[in-house]
This record gives sequence, structure tokens and C-alpha cells, in this order.
Amino acid sequence: MQIADRIEQALDRAVALAQGPGAPPLLASALRYAVFPAGHRIRPQLCLAVAGACGDADPESADAAAAAIELLHCASLVHDDLPCFDDSALRRGKASVHAEYGAPLAVLTGDALIVHAFATLRPVAARDPSRMATLLGIVTEAVGSPGGIVAGQAWECEVAVPLADYQRAKTGALFVAATRAGAAAAGVDAEPWRMLGDKLGEAYQVADDLRDVLCDSDELGKPIGQDAVRLRPNAAAQLGVGGAKARLEDLVRAAVESIPDCPGAADLRMLIKAQTALFFPKQLAREAA
Amino acid sequence: MQIADRIEQALDRAVALAQGPGAPPLLASALRYAVFPAGHRIRPQLCLAVAGACGDADPESADAAAAAIELLHCASLVHDDLPCFDDSALRRGKASVHAEYGAPLAVLTGDALIVHAFATLRPVAARDPSRMATLLGIVTEAVGSPGGIVAGQAWECEVAVPLADYQRAKTGALFVAATRAGAAAAGVDAEPWRMLGDKLGEAYQVADDLRDVLCDSDELGKPIGQDAVRLRPNAAAQLGVGGAKARLEDLVRAAVESIPDCPGAADLRMLIKAQTALFFPKQLAREAA
Repeated sequence: MQIADRIEQALDRAVALAQGPGAPPLLASALRYAVFPAGHRIRPQLCLAVAGACGDADPESADAAAAAIELLHCASLVHDDLPCFDDSALRRGKASVHAEYGAPLAVLTGDALIVHAFATLRPVAARDPSRMATLLGIVTEAVGSPGGIVAGQAWECEVAVPLADYQRAKTGALFVAATRAGAAAAGVDAEPWRMLGDKLGEAYQVADDLRDVLCDSDELGKPIGQDAVRLRPNAAAQLGVGGAKARLEDLVRAAVESIPDCPGAADLRMLIKAQTALFFPKQLAREAA
Repeated sequence: MQIADRIEQALDRAVALAQGPGAPPLLASALRYAVFPAGHRIRPQLCLAVAGACGDADPESADAAAAAIELLHCASLVHDDLPCFDDSALRRGKASVHAEYGAPLAVLTGDALIVHAFATLRPVAARDPSRMATLLGIVTEAVGSPGGIVAGQAWECEVAVPLADYQRAKTGALFVAATRAGAAAAGVDAEPWRMLGDKLGEAYQVADDLRDVLCDSDELGKPIGQDAVRLRPNAAAQLGVGGAKARLEDLVRAAVESIPDCPGAADLRMLIKAQTALFFPKQLAREAA
């Protein structure tokens, strides 16, 4: 089965469980709305690509980890869009969850997605209990405090923000979880895969900053120019578009070079190059063509 | 060590981890504020009491389960108090988290508490991996959808609310998790302990309804008369104070009778009777004296 199909099926199973008999209808509807139709699914694709490069000895565990990571990403989007944060009415080209269902259900949808991300890992225990413990540790590190996405978002509530900590927590942590969890699910030591996630996370952040400056709202599926509005740090604003583009290329190169020895290393290197090319905003891609 | 000390120490360890080096200072502060000083800790006490009655073969796992359940309870209080839900400025006799830290940090504090509840279970894996999987299943059932506390809160966003489903999810589910997790942590079949949690959860809900009608705000540490304000079902309003008190007594009796055979059954029955006597609002306790 193709990676994309594995991801959608794993997410569908997780959401279907949460929509089980007796679920409040609006919550059940909002949960599916928050997860489907698919966004780019960059993190779960990365997770399964790493698992594949490592031999994919336990595809069911890899699918569970990939789904957990994407559910947590979706949860963070739903909560970040809330009126008390970005107050964003648009996400993935449609109304954000709070715009469609109201803020109370958006809070609860995010909460439920977090809970069900962890529930997704549970069947891994029947396959290999110690593997589930490893995955649980990788996921909680990527989402909690001090260094996960919740902490990353919390930096936006501080007056003084250490930029590297903020970006590593808000964006990098879940990329690191994706590469580490992919390796761990395949029964391989997760730690050597941290650098790949770290570099790709930073690359994605720089690309996101470029898109915020260069794209229009239709292309992006969410409001643009938000970093300037919110006085958030933006690599394109700091380094200029050319400088940010060079930084992005450096990060992709470092990511590719960091890939540990593994059966599928050559294929993974090609895949990372192809996927990260999609990070570049269309305008830059057109200029480069 | 006393049960109360075990609970506070386990919670302190969990919060300290989330406050680790590099944590955003306001989030770190809000996390501790949301968990300490202690509320009644009814759910973790119940969890450890059941574990004790079952022989407490693995106290560290019982402590982890008790802490996870209390962290999830604290998370639900923080989110329920948000302006978009109850907009409650008072909790446990002090300013609620959003009143003290603002709504954005209150959302993130709840999120982090959910994540760290699951993180708390991780060390159980090193002791007995299959036990962690059981506990993870018990906890996710009690918190997620369709029947956990997030679903319970989501019923408040619906027009038509099935009262039994609503109360079982919003209040009962975490009591059921407490009794089942206590048994599972002690290495005993969790399922026979479901009834005890179910009856105690319903008893607590009726007691809470009575307090909402009878107590003053100082005694309760949160605003009173909220059910009438919010048109929420209230057993005391439906059955009268006398009827609700009789229902509470029936539920406590059924709870005590449901306790499965176990080494500490007699002590547990006495403890449940003593603890549930504290459920009664002071005014009713005074009348009964």
C-alpha cells in the first residue's frame, strides 16, 4: 500500500474510534472536520519514509506512530487558530474549526485529538510493549513541556522569546518526533535520526516564513502576512528573501547529509530532496525554473 | 508512606518534569498553579485505595496511574473554566488559571496537563509493559470520545442532551478510570471494579448538584447556582433536596456493595463510607448530626 493510503487509513481508524456509539454528534463531526480532507501530511509521510528506509519491520506500529503525530499536529492547528491565539478563520482552504463549530467545540476537538493520538499508540503494545513505551516517550517529548509544541506555542505568551527555543519547540519538535518514531517503530535506535528531523523542521519553518511573505492567501489556504501583524520573528524578514532561500537550501543539504546508514538511505535521500523542493513557495520555484 | 503524600509526590514529579530546563516561564508557573495546592484529590485517592485493597503489588505503577488521572482532572477544570465555557474566575478558592494567566496560557496549560498525564504512565512500561498498555487504555477511554470527560463537556454544546450519557461521561468516566486503574496497577483484573467507579461517580455528581444549590461560594471555592444559570440538569432541582439526598445514599450503598472480593475489601468499604460522607454539603451534614 502507498504511504499516503496507509496514513489516511490509520487516521480514519483513529477518528472512527472517537466517533463511536454515543459520541456527542457535533464533537464527532468536528473531529473528522479537523483531520480530513488531508493537508500535506508532511510529518506522517516523513515518519513512514524513515520507517521504510529502516526496513519497516513493523508497519502497523509505524502507521500508529504516524497517525499519532498527525493527530497532534491537527490538534495544534485547531488550538492555534482559536480566537485567543491567532483568531484565524481559514485553515487548509476552508473555515477553521472554531469558525465552523465555535470556540468551545474547537477547544474540545483539540483536547480529544491529543487524547486519541495517545490512544492510537495502544495497539503497538500488543505487538511489542517496549516499542510502545519508546514511542510514547518520543511523542510526549515532542508535544509537552519543556521542548514540545505546546511549549512552543506558550513562548508566544512571553515578553522575551529565545528565538531558537521557540522555533525548535513550535515546529521542529514534531519533525524530530516523526523521524525518531519512524526509526523506533521499525525497531531501530531512534537517536541517530534526531538530526534529520531537526534540520527538516527548521527548513520547514524558514519555508513557512517565506510563504507568509510571498504567497497569496488562496495559494496558502490560510491568511498571509501574519508574522508582521503579530510581530513574530520571520526568517525572510530578517535575512531577506534571498538570504532565507539560501538558508533553506543549506538546511535541506544538512538534512540529507545527516541520514544515518540504513537499507533505504539512497532512496530516502532522493525522497527528502523531492519533498523539500515542495517546501519552496511557488513564486521561488517559478523563478528557479 | 500515606496515600496523600504519595499522590502529592507523584504529581510534583510530573509537574517538575514539565517545568524542566528551557520551559517557557509562564507556562511552567501556570502548570504548577493548576495542580497545587491540592484539591480534594478524590480520584487519585480512590485509585490508590483500590490498589491498596488489591494488595498494591506495584505501588509505583499505582502512583503513576493516580497522578495521570488527577492531571487529567486538573486539565478538565482549567479548560471548563475558560471564558468560552463556564467563564469561571474562581477555582479551589483562588483565581482560575485563565483569570490569573489569561485564556491563551489556560488553553496551553490544559493541553500540557493532558500530554503529561500520558507521560506519567511511561515509566510503568519499564516495570511491566503490558500493564502500561492496560492503563493507557483505561485512561484514554475515560478522557476521550465517545464516553470520556471531553465528550461529557462536548454534550454541553448540543441542543438535545441525553442526561445519563452526559453525566456518565463528564463525571463518572474518571471515577471509573480511578477504580479500574487502581486494580490494573496492582495486577488485578480491572473490569469488576467498573461498578464501584460508576456508582461513586454518580454519587459525586448528585452531591455536586446539591452543593450547587445549598452551599455558599466561600464554602465551595467556586461560584454557586451555576446549573440554574446555565440551564444544566441538576438532581437537587429535579428531585428536591430530600430526594437528591436519598438518591445519594442509595448510590453510596450500591457502591459499597459492588466492591469485589479482595484482600482489603473490609477496609475499603469503611473508607468509601467515610469518604463519601464528606460528599454531603456541610448544611446537610449538620442537619443529619
